[in-house]
Amino acid sequence: MNLQLPVIDSIADTELEARLQYKINHLTKPLGSLGQIEALALQLGLICQSESPHLVEPQLLVFAGDHGLAQQGVSAYPGDVTWQMVENFLSGGACVSVLCKNQNIALNVVDCGVKHDFHEPNQPPRKGLLHYKIAYGTQDSSRYSAMTYEQCQNAIQNGMTLAAQLPGNVLLLGEMGIGNTSAASLIMSRMLQLDIAQCTGAGTGLDSAGITHKTNVLRQVLERHLHVTQPLDVLATFGGFEMACMLGAVLQAAHERRVIVVDGFITTAVILLAHALQPYVLQRCVFAHRSDERAHNLMLQHLQVKPLLDLGMRLGEGSGAAMAWPLLLSASHIMQEMASFAAAGVDEKL
Amino acid sequence: MNLQLPVIDSIADTELEARLQYKINHLTKPLGSLGQIEALALQLGLICQSESPHLVEPQLLVFAGDHGLAQQGVSAYPGDVTWQMVENFLSGGACVSVLCKNQNIALNVVDCGVKHDFHEPNQPPRKGLLHYKIAYGTQDSSRYSAMTYEQCQNAIQNGMTLAAQLPGNVLLLGEMGIGNTSAASLIMSRMLQLDIAQCTGAGTGLDSAGITHKTNVLRQVLERHLHVTQPLDVLATFGGFEMACMLGAVLQAAHERRVIVVDGFITTAVILLAHALQPYVLQRCVFAHRSDERAHNLMLQHLQVKPLLDLGMRLGEGSGAAMAWPLLLSASHIMQEMASFAAAGVDEKL
Repeated sequence: MNLQLPVIDSIADTELEARLQYKINHLTKPLGSLGQIEALALQLGLICQSESPHLVEPQLLVFAGDHGLAQQGVSAYPGDVTWQMVENFLSGGACVSVLCKNQNIALNVVDCGVKHDFHEPNQPPRKGLLHYKIAYGTQDSSRYSAMTYEQCQNAIQNGMTLAAQLPGNVLLLGEMGIGNTSAASLIMSRMLQLDIAQCTGAGTGLDSAGITHKTNVLRQVLERHLHVTQPLDVLATFGGFEMACMLGAVLQAAHERRVIVVDGFITTAVILLAHALQPYVLQRCVFAHRSDERAHNLMLQHLQVKPLLDLGMRLGEGSGAAMAWPLLLSASHIMQEMASFAAAGVDEKL
Repeated sequence: MNLQLPVIDSIADTELEARLQYKINHLTKPLGSLGQIEALALQLGLICQSESPHLVEPQLLVFAGDHGLAQQGVSAYPGDVTWQMVENFLSGGACVSVLCKNQNIALNVVDCGVKHDFHEPNQPPRKGLLHYKIAYGTQDSSRYSAMTYEQCQNAIQNGMTLAAQLPGNVLLLGEMGIGNTSAASLIMSRMLQLDIAQCTGAGTGLDSAGITHKTNVLRQVLERHLHVTQPLDVLATFGGFEMACMLGAVLQAAHERRVIVVDGFITTAVILLAHALQPYVLQRCVFAHRSDERAHNLMLQHLQVKPLLDLGMRLGEGSGAAMAWPLLLSASHIMQEMASFAAAGVDEKL
């Protein structure tokens, strides 16, 4: 492929890490008593290269696209729900819209390949909608490659371009696309070399017969494309335009040392690919929650990460990322504003 | 005792619950996909008696008091840390101060019995400090009852009085008091009839020898007061002024149908007492987090509740309650602002 992917360096910095840990240990609290929030504060400090990391103008992008594979009855919802939900994001009625509005997170929907026109061809795109459409949905991966290499490259490039234009230093990941848990399961199965049954769940709410059907369809898709193993080939063959665009945005954001807040099953599948391409991406990722989509936990185990929330959520859209956002803010505020024992005149441990 | 405790009725309302569940089920998201946030939204609706519960002017109270038992070497920190940390709360340098300030939670420290004068006798109390001092710390419960009945009653009455004066409809619970994990362990052991070893942990950071010493001291305290079993007697004998005052505030807040956000080990010990006195208190309680203080989980199991966060925190102060607060806000915003499938024109499940 001709695509030039950003290089992601390690952010490891033993000197800064020592200063951060010293600061955390001397704040007015028992040693280690903020648990995972302390690890988060340390990570934010390393990403932002600051003992007082500031998180500025958080941007949540909902990457949206349709999936040809949805024709095979792998989702509990009709394909039109993709564009209908995009309208719902734009009008403020979706969960992620409500969370973003109330938490001052900028929300934009990226049309990466929705099977719908959101505006007349000669009109400018609507407010809150970024037009990076590759096609009106992918091809059905049970018959063809979901994308051509060129389409996949273009979608990745789009993600890189748009991430480079974002203000602030935080990118929160969301997605919308009927059929995209199937695409994520396929990517997971191939990348982690796990049987598809271990990678497949209820998605938006299939019953057990529906999950069996979905698993059978996905097994056939994998058999049809037996020899696809390289990350970008896996993405083009099994993925969606929204996943390719998200991958580009993730790589660009990581290159720019933005904090990347990962949502649930589909966004973590994209992180699996990003991690395979550029392992240090993971240093910039904060995992927001453990999804109730059952295979998500296996992905998290593979990446050896512990998410912040475990609330049994499985909505997608970036709702878990937005729900966890205040915890990142809290970690940042603690580093900026908490007093040390010495400064506050509080006695240390006996 | 002459104290007249508030009566706490059940908030069960099958008709309202059905309307709330119908509303939740028809919001634009797969059925049940917000997991524990849906249960929280339902609970908030029942407490607030509204299909669109509004949470208004949240109030976090840090109940502070000293413990005579601290003389027995049960804490990793010296007793002066209680008043020093109160100063830290007032000057904004403590964790809970930082979280409250940045999340628009009103913070007040209640001096229920700190061994320190925070202002001259002829001066008004300082901003952010409520003066409800019973005495300069409790008695050492390894030798005497921690409080007299009258002191305990007065502290409970103080809590009722101050909770009745609070604005808003949410009370978040915090506490400060060197030695108060010991008091909480004693209350837990006696109320749940569990061996003290199962109820005792590291507190602010004892090592294993320290925990052994603490457990031995607490075992002797329990043996010294073998026949104390009634909740208010248990409180007076083993508790602290801050716990008695908190109990009064919890009962009054529950009576007024406020949402009560429970923090960690010490606040949950107070809820054990409140629950024993008035079981329906629990309907108003949202459990913020699972503390890393190891016996907390047993308390939660006894109450059959699942907390929102599980971040390995064990700081106290109400820091867990403040950390979880945005999740309550999110649940409330979702009920107020999310669109239904019908209103948004989104197709329902196939």
